[in-house]
Amino acid sequence: MSSTGSRSSESTVNSEHGVAPRDVDVQPSRVVTGLDRLLAQKMLEMVGNPGISIQLWDGSEVITSREVSHKLIITDRRALWLLLFDAEYHFGEMYASRRVMVQGDLVSFLEKAYRGIDEAGKSWLSKLLLAISHRPRLNTLTGSRKNIHHHYNIGNPFYQLWLDQEAIQYTCAYFPDPAMSIEQAQVAKLHHIARKLQLKPGQTVVEAGCGWGGLARFFAKHYGVTVKAYNISSEQVAFARNKAKEQGLDDRVEYVEDDYRNITGEYDVFVSVGMLEHVGRQHYATLGNVVDRCLKDDGVGLIHSIGRNKPGLMNSWIEKRIFPGAYPPSLKEMMDIFEPNQLSVQDVENIRLHYAKTIEHWLDRFDQHEDEIRQMFDANFVRAWRLYLAGSIAAFTTGQLQLFQIMFTRDRHNDLSWSRAHLYNQGH
Amino acid sequence: MSSTGSRSSESTVNSEHGVAPRDVDVQPSRVVTGLDRLLAQKMLEMVGNPGISIQLWDGSEVITSREVSHKLIITDRRALWLLLFDAEYHFGEMYASRRVMVQGDLVSFLEKAYRGIDEAGKSWLSKLLLAISHRPRLNTLTGSRKNIHHHYNIGNPFYQLWLDQEAIQYTCAYFPDPAMSIEQAQVAKLHHIARKLQLKPGQTVVEAGCGWGGLARFFAKHYGVTVKAYNISSEQVAFARNKAKEQGLDDRVEYVEDDYRNITGEYDVFVSVGMLEHVGRQHYATLGNVVDRCLKDDGVGLIHSIGRNKPGLMNSWIEKRIFPGAYPPSLKEMMDIFEPNQLSVQDVENIRLHYAKTIEHWLDRFDQHEDEIRQMFDANFVRAWRLYLAGSIAAFTTGQLQLFQIMFTRDRHNDLSWSRAHLYNQGH
Repeated sequence: MSSTGSRSSESTVNSEHGVAPRDVDVQPSRVVTGLDRLLAQKMLEMVGNPGISIQLWDGSEVITSREVSHKLIITDRRALWLLLFDAEYHFGEMYASRRVMVQGDLVSFLEKAYRGIDEAGKSWLSKLLLAISHRPRLNTLTGSRKNIHHHYNIGNPFYQLWLDQEAIQYTCAYFPDPAMSIEQAQVAKLHHIARKLQLKPGQTVVEAGCGWGGLARFFAKHYGVTVKAYNISSEQVAFARNKAKEQGLDDRVEYVEDDYRNITGEYDVFVSVGMLEHVGRQHYATLGNVVDRCLKDDGVGLIHSIGRNKPGLMNSWIEKRIFPGAYPPSLKEMMDIFEPNQLSVQDVENIRLHYAKTIEHWLDRFDQHEDEIRQMFDANFVRAWRLYLAGSIAAFTTGQLQLFQIMFTRDRHNDLSWSRAHLYNQGH
Repeated sequence: MSSTGSRSSESTVNSEHGVAPRDVDVQPSRVVTGLDRLLAQKMLEMVGNPGISIQLWDGSEVITSREVSHKLIITDRRALWLLLFDAEYHFGEMYASRRVMVQGDLVSFLEKAYRGIDEAGKSWLSKLLLAISHRPRLNTLTGSRKNIHHHYNIGNPFYQLWLDQEAIQYTCAYFPDPAMSIEQAQVAKLHHIARKLQLKPGQTVVEAGCGWGGLARFFAKHYGVTVKAYNISSEQVAFARNKAKEQGLDDRVEYVEDDYRNITGEYDVFVSVGMLEHVGRQHYATLGNVVDRCLKDDGVGLIHSIGRNKPGLMNSWIEKRIFPGAYPPSLKEMMDIFEPNQLSVQDVENIRLHYAKTIEHWLDRFDQHEDEIRQMFDANFVRAWRLYLAGSIAAFTTGQLQLFQIMFTRDRHNDLSWSRAHLYNQGH
């Protein structure tokens, strides 16, 4: 992964003397005590002293490792305490508002922090500190769920600035060749899924959670199938319907503004890309019931979802600010969809690094359109989304998050291909 | 699957009038009552009246479906009751001793029974009957574990009669082309696994549960790696060492007569084919610990095992008579190996139908060598093993059993290939 080097660091921060005070909500004159310095030191210890220094609000620097590549700038005492108490949540909040800043590439800073937390998690001190700092999170999550989406009333034009122009996919692309453009890789992803599903002309497909409807249109156009696609976002459904009309596909693609639980009918194919993360663990058996209800006896299904190597909650800041209710399940947890419903898992592919690369492309475009986005929203929004995108790259690169594609059939479906070679022997 | 038609039916049974009394241990004169007939009828109901008739010990026939393709011959009243009480276990016992017999192809008879039990499992009556009939099984399993292996002191020559002559694999082969011979398919399996592991010359491999050592020799010979292979069977280890010496591979392959839990050292590759079934569910975390202990940071592992779509016990007769302690886990259960040990699942492939085809080849060869095997052991042994092989074909064909290959790495291993195309683009 070439994730370092090219990205902009804190351009508005003077690299020698720290914070430009104009848009920071603290008094830069406040004194730094010995305790402040000790706490900053402990915080670096907690992440395993990973070559990050901390600059405190008087401009002084705490350095715990020989080679320092990144600087974390903390602009007031309360910010330091909040980071110690629950860095996972408060870092995002305070980064967005410039109460904390990062000098050096943001992605590699976050990768270091993730790797460090993982390693340091093994010492008793950090275990204790992490246990304490994680405690209030559940309360946080039960609070009101105003999130950036709602707050800023984000619309389609925002996403179109930085997602691929081909199929408008807000999910992991597939880079069989890592030099592909994001457009090529999203098209490759759709072909890859279509081949896993072994689509044949005339088949009926139901899609649970269709975003802007790109997959449905692509399958109808390139594989001659009929698609019924469900989504609860009226804005996305309206967009999807328009596009289908424009492309003359509205006789073969139907977008339904409804929940996946209300899917009716029977289909040859069930597909869901990037919805499971939002379903909630307690609803997996229900999702399995829906599949069981709507899949024909010789049907094939595929679920594509962010996951984890072991159970754990989503980053609490992202969960609160970007994706309320999001939960990336482990494979073991995902099996609750299949095992109670007589479904048979045929193929699981983990394409974690493809998601890191996908988001690198998104972040590059996001940065190219920074000025437009700042005008659409404001500077805090830009910083929050940059952090979310950079943090997601770091999470996939360091193995905090996985991306699973699970292909399945009913348990007694025997018309299976004898190898997966058909996924790889074609032109696309 | 072409599993019907060619196999021998009960050649010693007169197809018109039933049992030839000479080798049956009941009095053919005993009277059949109305209750006997009713119970036989209920038994057919329990499996959904699948075109099987029952011939009772006076030669009379109970028919509950229009098209009858198979006849189950029950030679005494107690046999009928034992089948009703726990068919899963007693069918095997009584089939081996000819107290019950089957007219028509055995594999398709068993497929009908499996499918029927699965379907009928949905009615309240059959649920009740199945619940009752399954109850005593756990007690049975805790009893002494004299099994056919021990009873008959089965040796290497028996298996060599019907396993492949190339690599002596007693595990599922891989048929990318279903017309392959068993020798070709076992070689294809070994290449397929080697490619999933991305073996490179000079690497070190540890194998947990190596059978007659075929995989270890194959990897050393064709991929230039060094293999340390563990097995607790002294007879198999002695055989494996001899073969390695014969083939001049004893400098690169070491066979260790010891349990997988005693594996020492660090390796580039961990591989285990067909051992997990015998590990026991309660030891999965331990197996994961062993992998964690012996796998290098950039190591790759693969576990190949029989499994299930949902948790359930092995057929009780096979568990008692053929494989004491065997348990085919569901994918969810298998995750207990990986999730607690920072291991990341990269690829799962289910090749269930390949195992049905593998065992079809084994059964064909078994039948070709029937006379030799009867002379090695006796007629009951031949019938028991025929039933075991036929029952296994039926279990894989009807989806009672699955075959999973799981490829995994450590959680932060990033030197992953960008697609699985390398598994399919080569010559072999």
